[in-house]
Amino acid sequence: MKALSEKQIIEKLKEFEGWDYYEGALHTIFEFEDFKEAFSAMTRIAFEAEKLQHHPEWSNVYNSLEIYLSTHDADGVTEKDFELAKIIDELIG
Amino acid sequence: MKALSEKQIIEKLKEFEGWDYYEGALHTIFEFEDFKEAFSAMTRIAFEAEKLQHHPEWSNVYNSLEIYLSTHDADGVTEKDFELAKIIDELIG
Repeated sequence: MKALSEKQIIEKLKEFEGWDYYEGALHTIFEFEDFKEAFSAMTRIAFEAEKLQHHPEWSNVYNSLEIYLSTHDADGVTEKDFELAKIIDELIG
Repeated sequence: MKALSEKQIIEKLKEFEGWDYYEGALHTIFEFEDFKEAFSAMTRIAFEAEKLQHHPEWSNVYNSLEIYLSTHDADGVTEKDFELAKIIDELIG
């Protein structure tokens, strides 16, 4: 899995809403109604991430969920990160 | 719920292992075997936090879980944070 160039990443991000390229990762923030909704979303994402064997870097405070996707082994953003971003959007959207 | 003084916090932290007072919060990092173990622990903590109506600020990367506990309304660390820290230690320990 090879890291994409910044140009490729910016181009591919055009298909996504609410994601940006930030600190070398695909990055987004979701706001939910409350903690229960936020953690429910995290649980759904966790199962898919585990299935994909590709895990997010994420943090949660009450109803807010911030996600960074990058590929450690490739030291950058790969197709796998876009795959997980798409899955996350499908789960949350 | 009143914020504790730094002196009170340091004193109370003596009863805890692996926690420090950092950036105005009770702070710890747990390392698990893998993502599944980390997220399972988060799930157990999430239910207790919700029951307590007191939620952590936490971030997870693969097998690592970093937790900050503070009380927004009191703008500091309160007894409630120590209560949640104790519950977390009981769940994880």
